[in-house]
Amino acid sequence: MKKAAIAALALAATALPALAQQMKPEDQVHMRQSTMSLIGYNFGILSAMAQGKRAYDKAEAERAAGILPRLAELPGRFFGEGTDKADHTKAKPEIWSHMDDFKQKLEHMQHEVAMLPQAAGDLDSLKKQVGATGKACKSCHDDYKSK
Amino acid sequence: MKKAAIAALALAATALPALAQQMKPEDQVHMRQSTMSLIGYNFGILSAMAQGKRAYDKAEAERAAGILPRLAELPGRFFGEGTDKADHTKAKPEIWSHMDDFKQKLEHMQHEVAMLPQAAGDLDSLKKQVGATGKACKSCHDDYKSK
Repeated sequence: MKKAAIAALALAATALPALAQQMKPEDQVHMRQSTMSLIGYNFGILSAMAQGKRAYDKAEAERAAGILPRLAELPGRFFGEGTDKADHTKAKPEIWSHMDDFKQKLEHMQHEVAMLPQAAGDLDSLKKQVGATGKACKSCHDDYKSK
Repeated sequence: MKKAAIAALALAATALPALAQQMKPEDQVHMRQSTMSLIGYNFGILSAMAQGKRAYDKAEAERAAGILPRLAELPGRFFGEGTDKADHTKAKPEIWSHMDDFKQKLEHMQHEVAMLPQAAGDLDSLKKQVGATGKACKSCHDDYKSK
């Protein structure tokens, strides 16, 4: 993916568009959890292939890698006001007290995810990029997601 | 989107890949509900623009329309064995007794959704394609989704 596209993804995540602001906090929480589940499902497929737990399948790798940059744009929309107090959220309150750092980590994740589609075409590239992306996910989850 | 791409989408939905078969029924139900929530969120944005309830915004319309064909590939993966008996499912048992018709309706939805990205570039085309897509969604929900 080109630099401009990566920048656009990053912008989309940090802009917190008007729509999310109009959504009820509980609906935002539902949407961020649904989005994270889809990211987990698709990244899980790539990760299993990278670790040899699942046979490498180019078409399925490219499908999973293709949807991920579009999914990665979305979670940043759903951390609006009041969504820190929701039931059943694993989002730590530190997100809202360290919003700049949180956004920076989101952008870093989006940057790595944006490189998955190109990497998915062969297993060696996929392994490397799954590793880099997994680190970006972990770095944010370590600080901002409860176990 | 080209015919071949539409055919590939349809195939992906009907193939019920091995992975879904290995997933626990409750995980499949979670994934189909998460996927449907994301489809609803993104189609809801396009629908609101088409109905004049939200200002038309080309970039946001193209973003929402861009992710939808990739999301529409997924629900068909998560109606595997045992997922008819799950708690909190609105999926009617008729899905499993009329699987061919259900798959045909899924494919019709994918066919309409595949035309959204091209339609999103101007409001008149978007209105038409949102209408056609909404009908495809409704036709399946009327028969196979509980209120």
